[in-house]
Amino acid sequence: MLAIFTDFGVQGPYLGQMRAVLLAQAPAVPVVDIFPDLPPFRVQAAAYLLPAYSQYLPDNSVCVCVVDPGVGTNRRALVVRADSRCYVGPDNGLFSILIRRAVDVQVFEISWRPEQLSKSFHGRDLFAPVAAAIARGERLPAEEIEVTRLLMPAWPEDLMQVVYIDSYGNAITALRACRVSQDGILDVGKKSCEFRPTFGEAEAGIPFWYENSNGLVEIAMSNGDAAEALGLGVGSVIAYR
Amino acid sequence: MLAIFTDFGVQGPYLGQMRAVLLAQAPAVPVVDIFPDLPPFRVQAAAYLLPAYSQYLPDNSVCVCVVDPGVGTNRRALVVRADSRCYVGPDNGLFSILIRRAVDVQVFEISWRPEQLSKSFHGRDLFAPVAAAIARGERLPAEEIEVTRLLMPAWPEDLMQVVYIDSYGNAITALRACRVSQDGILDVGKKSCEFRPTFGEAEAGIPFWYENSNGLVEIAMSNGDAAEALGLGVGSVIAYR
Amino acid sequence: MLAIFTDFGVQGPYLGQMRAVLLAQAPAVPVVDIFPDLPPFRVQAAAYLLPAYSQYLPDNSVCVCVVDPGVGTNRRALVVRADSRCYVGPDNGLFSILIRRAVDVQVFEISWRPEQLSKSFHGRDLFAPVAAAIARGERLPAEEIEVTRLLMPAWPEDLMQVVYIDSYGNAITALRACRVSQDGILDVGKKSCEFRPTFGEAEAGIPFWYENSNGLVEIAMSNGDAAEALGLGVGSVIAYR
Repeated sequence: MLAIFTDFGVQGPYLGQMRAVLLAQAPAVPVVDIFPDLPPFRVQAAAYLLPAYSQYLPDNSVCVCVVDPGVGTNRRALVVRADSRCYVGPDNGLFSILIRRAVDVQVFEISWRPEQLSKSFHGRDLFAPVAAAIARGERLPAEEIEVTRLLMPAWPEDLMQVVYIDSYGNAITALRACRVSQDGILDVGKKSCEFRPTFGEAEAGIPFWYENSNGLVEIAMSNGDAAEALGLGVGSVIAYR
Repeated sequence: MLAIFTDFGVQGPYLGQMRAVLLAQAPAVPVVDIFPDLPPFRVQAAAYLLPAYSQYLPDNSVCVCVVDPGVGTNRRALVVRADSRCYVGPDNGLFSILIRRAVDVQVFEISWRPEQLSKSFHGRDLFAPVAAAIARGERLPAEEIEVTRLLMPAWPEDLMQVVYIDSYGNAITALRACRVSQDGILDVGKKSCEFRPTFGEAEAGIPFWYENSNGLVEIAMSNGDAAEALGLGVGSVIAYR
Repeated sequence: MLAIFTDFGVQGPYLGQMRAVLLAQAPAVPVVDIFPDLPPFRVQAAAYLLPAYSQYLPDNSVCVCVVDPGVGTNRRALVVRADSRCYVGPDNGLFSILIRRAVDVQVFEISWRPEQLSKSFHGRDLFAPVAAAIARGERLPAEEIEVTRLLMPAWPEDLMQVVYIDSYGNAITALRACRVSQDGILDVGKKSCEFRPTFGEAEAGIPFWYENSNGLVEIAMSNGDAAEALGLGVGSVIAYR
């Protein structure tokens, strides 16, 4: 399976152009957008979402990852083999959290370049063809590089921030639920949320936190919009006590 | 064909995760989102849209239906065989109008559960695998239940409400056009709309009603946004005279 | 490959119904949305975007083009063979710029009509089945018509307007970058933009113009929303000096 993980957004021609390349160059492999609208330009937020949202992809999936505000500058292009899956994208920190959490990991710099490489759309012109080639089982010229150079040591194990607001108004954080107890309180600004196991067990109109279906702490409200009620946006700081 | 009918919205990771499961578990079957952004949590609105918007799917299609505010509580999981198609989703009224209008219908409770079942995403973990299994031609352990228990008798034959606003600002109602005459007037709040057969025959800037391409009464405006002009939203009451 | 180019928007049931027809009637051919949310009803804007955004489709692709405010009136249905690709859609000017720029072009009027033709959704009922038939390699009854009748002579070679605002707030114009020098200044309202080759070479917070990855002049801002900063919308007039 080929998976697209990007901040392009669902509108406009970008996702379609990516899919057109993938389907033309690897016609036997299905293509899925696993996260099409990450917060624009927010490499750090995306880095924490990547391991959570790619963990259920089938083995041997190839994930094209494009959150790339530095496109057209001379940042490197990478292929990351992390446990059973493969990731393609820019060397800007996007893979740092994935790499930290992987058991078995190798990283390669891609030296291959297409004949026509636009300056603003390496997703379509470089990363998608590389991902399609890997999905077809080909090997591209690539040089292994040391994993330790990619780890962004200043970034914490879990990021105490909201990293995505979904269409219901639920606020996904970069705090893994397995790292905290369900007895704890989550503070967001001047408000606090208790844990509830499911939406059905939450009181209407009262925000709560729960472990979302990808293992992250998420702030939600039964039949309502938690982000609006609490004034949350991407980057809002959370605290756990 | 596998079809997704849901209130997830086109943004975010939910549709992609559903598609990833369907494509991994039924690789030979194409997947289509027939309605990806139903009004959030509005089971009744969705129930009236389901027969209208699944009627053109090919025979033997399997439709995964997820408008499921009670996810994680102990509502049942259902498979509905209605005429030539199959539907999978929660037992919360979502299938009641479909069942009423079907000629040949059987309903089964799904007792199968996956090894890993999240509390908040049965679409991905339960309904999608069941739909994929049916699309592959497998039979799952399921117990037939009486159709009459699912009919929501308090819900009318046609719901006199707006149930969806599309991206042009057209307001889809749950009133079937075949139930009313084209001479009639549609009242919405303090405004009224006459029938026009097509957009081309309507005056610019004057809202009208017409039979949409799925057989429902829809309020529209030529080259304009009818919902904005009339102040319509999901749940706005309509009257026909 | 089958490509969808339309103003339906990504929300709602329309794209899904198109894809369902294409996948049911041409199951071996992958389907891609190359532009799903063109500005609503803006045939002229779409006409200039079509050659730019279909140029990277594989040879022999069939592109279903639906920007069709006159649906249901008696405008003709067309098949355009332009160089290595095929286009299906309404005769309302949508193909005029594509035809002007093609080297080898033939146009046919489609006389075939489906048994059931809704008055408001020819995309699903007429254009998609025709495109699927062409993608399967079938020939439909069609009569060749003179290309010169479709050229919209009053429309300029390049349209000095914004024709799309993307999800980052970049403003795509209908001016081809190959027609202007990179030394030039782009005026938008009372503001001016200089050329920058890439986002990485632009100052944060200062709008610039660049050649986008499909060859058009685009107004952007590094890590920011150019359309908001400059008050741009579809139809905003640009000037080059």
